[in-house]
Amino acid sequence: MPGAVFRRGDRVTLRTVEHEDAEFLQRGHNDPDVAVPLGVNMPENESEAQASIEDHEGDNLNVSLLVCLEDGGDPTPIGQVYLMDLHHTRPELSYWLLPEYHGNGYGTEATEVLVDYAFNAHEIRGLQAQAFAPNDGSVGVLENLGFEHEGTLRDARFRDGEYVDVVWYGLLREEWEDAEVDD
Amino acid sequence: MPGAVFRRGDRVTLRTVEHEDAEFLQRGHNDPDVAVPLGVNMPENESEAQASIEDHEGDNLNVSLLVCLEDGGDPTPIGQVYLMDLHHTRPELSYWLLPEYHGNGYGTEATEVLVDYAFNAHEIRGLQAQAFAPNDGSVGVLENLGFEHEGTLRDARFRDGEYVDVVWYGLLREEWEDAEVDD
Amino acid sequence: MPGAVFRRGDRVTLRTVEHEDAEFLQRGHNDPDVAVPLGVNMPENESEAQASIEDHEGDNLNVSLLVCLEDGGDPTPIGQVYLMDLHHTRPELSYWLLPEYHGNGYGTEATEVLVDYAFNAHEIRGLQAQAFAPNDGSVGVLENLGFEHEGTLRDARFRDGEYVDVVWYGLLREEWEDAEVDD
Amino acid sequence: MPGAVFRRGDRVTLRTVEHEDAEFLQRGHNDPDVAVPLGVNMPENESEAQASIEDHEGDNLNVSLLVCLEDGGDPTPIGQVYLMDLHHTRPELSYWLLPEYHGNGYGTEATEVLVDYAFNAHEIRGLQAQAFAPNDGSVGVLENLGFEHEGTLRDARFRDGEYVDVVWYGLLREEWEDAEVDD
Amino acid sequence: MPGAVFRRGDRVTLRTVEHEDAEFLQRGHNDPDVAVPLGVNMPENESEAQASIEDHEGDNLNVSLLVCLEDGGDPTPIGQVYLMDLHHTRPELSYWLLPEYHGNGYGTEATEVLVDYAFNAHEIRGLQAQAFAPNDGSVGVLENLGFEHEGTLRDARFRDGEYVDVVWYGLLREEWEDAEVDD
Amino acid sequence: MPGAVFRRGDRVTLRTVEHEDAEFLQRGHNDPDVAVPLGVNMPENESEAQASIEDHEGDNLNVSLLVCLEDGGDPTPIGQVYLMDLHHTRPELSYWLLPEYHGNGYGTEATEVLVDYAFNAHEIRGLQAQAFAPNDGSVGVLENLGFEHEGTLRDARFRDGEYVDVVWYGLLREEWEDAEVDD
Repeated sequence: MPGAVFRRGDRVTLRTVEHEDAEFLQRGHNDPDVAVPLGVNMPENESEAQASIEDHEGDNLNVSLLVCLEDGGDPTPIGQVYLMDLHHTRPELSYWLLPEYHGNGYGTEATEVLVDYAFNAHEIRGLQAQAFAPNDGSVGVLENLGFEHEGTLRDARFRDGEYVDVVWYGLLREEWEDAEVDD
Repeated sequence: MPGAVFRRGDRVTLRTVEHEDAEFLQRGHNDPDVAVPLGVNMPENESEAQASIEDHEGDNLNVSLLVCLEDGGDPTPIGQVYLMDLHHTRPELSYWLLPEYHGNGYGTEATEVLVDYAFNAHEIRGLQAQAFAPNDGSVGVLENLGFEHEGTLRDARFRDGEYVDVVWYGLLREEWEDAEVDD
Repeated sequence: MPGAVFRRGDRVTLRTVEHEDAEFLQRGHNDPDVAVPLGVNMPENESEAQASIEDHEGDNLNVSLLVCLEDGGDPTPIGQVYLMDLHHTRPELSYWLLPEYHGNGYGTEATEVLVDYAFNAHEIRGLQAQAFAPNDGSVGVLENLGFEHEGTLRDARFRDGEYVDVVWYGLLREEWEDAEVDD
Repeated sequence: MPGAVFRRGDRVTLRTVEHEDAEFLQRGHNDPDVAVPLGVNMPENESEAQASIEDHEGDNLNVSLLVCLEDGGDPTPIGQVYLMDLHHTRPELSYWLLPEYHGNGYGTEATEVLVDYAFNAHEIRGLQAQAFAPNDGSVGVLENLGFEHEGTLRDARFRDGEYVDVVWYGLLREEWEDAEVDD
Repeated sequence: MPGAVFRRGDRVTLRTVEHEDAEFLQRGHNDPDVAVPLGVNMPENESEAQASIEDHEGDNLNVSLLVCLEDGGDPTPIGQVYLMDLHHTRPELSYWLLPEYHGNGYGTEATEVLVDYAFNAHEIRGLQAQAFAPNDGSVGVLENLGFEHEGTLRDARFRDGEYVDVVWYGLLREEWEDAEVDD
Repeated sequence: MPGAVFRRGDRVTLRTVEHEDAEFLQRGHNDPDVAVPLGVNMPENESEAQASIEDHEGDNLNVSLLVCLEDGGDPTPIGQVYLMDLHHTRPELSYWLLPEYHGNGYGTEATEVLVDYAFNAHEIRGLQAQAFAPNDGSVGVLENLGFEHEGTLRDARFRDGEYVDVVWYGLLREEWEDAEVDD
């Protein structure tokens, strides 16, 4: 059973990651459709997934939350969102959803809730995120949220047998505020 | 099931925090309506909530108690009170209630019981408490208990996307005694 | 129960190695028909098998996966594949299947999935593998995958009471790509 | 011999605290004329002074520097400055000089260099400092630097046999910038 | 006395970092003219400098070397070069010289020797480096070496009291080879 | 001063490696003319060289000896020889000389003394050695000693900016005995 609600969107919640979520997270982290776009290229067994949850307990610099679909019954975990390096000027955002939940706007909704939390709760100048050039889905979510394309590091990662560019996006506080007003 | 009664008011009790209370505390600590006014801005999973309870076992400098509503049946946990740094000249008081229990005077009652315990059981000169300026509810409780406004630290915390003042309140022993007489 | 699916072939999957797999792995590692061709000549108790799994948790330089037969019901573990020294120019591949599963092409299928993973996910120049000269089965799998015979180290190992040659095979990236096209 | 120069004023430098400085620091920390105004009321032996230096090595949240008088020959250590909780919205500043160096403006100069460093190098909203009401010297230095009096916590510390008020001062970034322009 | 010569340029050598170099490195790491452009904002005492040298002993993923001026007599240490994350697709290069040695092309020479070492000794796709936008000297060295400007992360660091852009540069292997031919 | 004589040739001795030899070894291990042909691509400071000597103290599986030129006066260290994995069927031999001592047959003489020691003192089936294809000097020494070329692993290492083949050589006990007779 997923943990306590930390922040809430229209259709999804961000809930705390509990020990019982190791199996769900492990399934996502090993699935090539999830892991390859994230740049993850090693298998993870359940014990490593469990250790990763426990290692982050008490960590005040990184946030990891479960994305859950709330449709009346029990919440259904469908992905994960992260904020890394909250002590940096622009912490880094990333996220993944299980492939069967793509295409419904859940990714945009979950990351929007996370972005609002980040700017409301932390004294940060902005957020940043990276994507691999061909990964259009991820880029689309970032652009929906108002992130600006700031650079393209050529051939900076290796995946699917070839070098791919790493595309950097950034969102400054005033851009987030403007987007809030537009909502 | 909440723990043993430690101190008792008219409608609420302050009860010991038991291992089984981790889930209740976790729910409160993640709820933005509870956590943001307290200045808490990170998620807490159940294991962290449990560790926090266990880490304070044997701690002689801080007191944490469950606020429970006693209305005949089983006691219902509705919040938490703290006293921090009991070895200081003026230890610090804080508290929270679940939002659905606001507005009934339970906060004033629970903190009054705690303040009486603090002055009766400990050789302290006074108590202090801080609030964020816009958080009127919390300030009201402090003023009900006779706390004096002693200072306003400008822009000393960040919440809800902006800097807020931290307001300090203090209650000296003779002020508490005078208030006792008035009751 | 085997762990999460990491990569998938037609009939077999490569799944993460879980703590519960120690007994299966131990059975293979002690069976002379499995161990002798691998050059393993010492007994392994279950605690050693368990330790070996745990010692590789968090290891980013070596990959070990369970080969599972997927035939509708629960997955059946039938062997193990490894990639060693992923930071080397040509990491080393090895594998074993329980004897009762030899002769069905499962070895070729499992190693082919592993080879594809290795070249797609890692910036390697090639792969290498060693076999003992008389071990035709293993050599056949390597040759099916396009590996080239690159050398024969005379009398470099001892097994079955005599010195045997160690035969080295290598597969370069362009050879793997050409083989991919032919598929 | 004092450590490397970290920041430089007209007559004093702020230098890194080295293991060899334990004896100097210990002398200051035990001297009632230094320690009482700081609220320090326990003895410190040289081993404790040494441990305190070593415990802060690798600490990224607090800064401690030696104030050295530079008058041509070898630098002469005359006091210490601190910044505490650099991850807070308003970190806290404190300092002390050996009594024989009071009254020459060295305290104002050293803390001014520290304040400039704090605002230039760290993304902070402001700085805060506390003083005991009767300690005019310390308050004078804060007011020279543009700090505003923000509150007086009554009877919040005990020294010299009686309760004393704790006076809080704050300096916001724009106030520091304005003071810079005035220089 | 600086350590063994690792690589050699016309006027400078890159030498191994020895325990005796802690004092020199500490002086550089505390000097605002060196540290601020590198993004270093905390003091470092000699013991921390020493620990940093020792912590990197046996580290195969990062290279740190002393830049020494060789002008006939004993070698004179004038700065430091680093390669970070050699297991990444594009490791990161950085360097500093003491201010009194700027403007003589020593920085270009030292980093050119390091770049040649990086591409000759390691199977890397490219190198990357970051600079703060206003730091023209550093950018000039990168452009001299053929690095391409790949992106500008807006307001991504804080220095000298304001947010500054982080400018990313990259050099791919074929660009390095072309530049070699041109020499 | 080099250590005790362990084995003696006509012009060179193999002497024990002493703590005082760290500086000599470090010089060799950092010199590109020595290190690149050995496949060493990271700097080594004196403390690492020292640790490497100390780590092998009490090691019964590997032998490291200093090659010293004996020409009447004090012995002059000119290189190093190694035997690795003495518990393997065919341990591995390697060696280096400072460049200024190449071309005088010292390498052949030193390795011949080592090979004789290896076969005389240990129950081994043979010895093996690897070289990079273009490194003719090393191959010449092996062929002088009767080693047979057994294989060429294509593109198995990276040096001087390109992939190079690794050439394996082997010498079996009877081949060594025959060569002894021929002497």
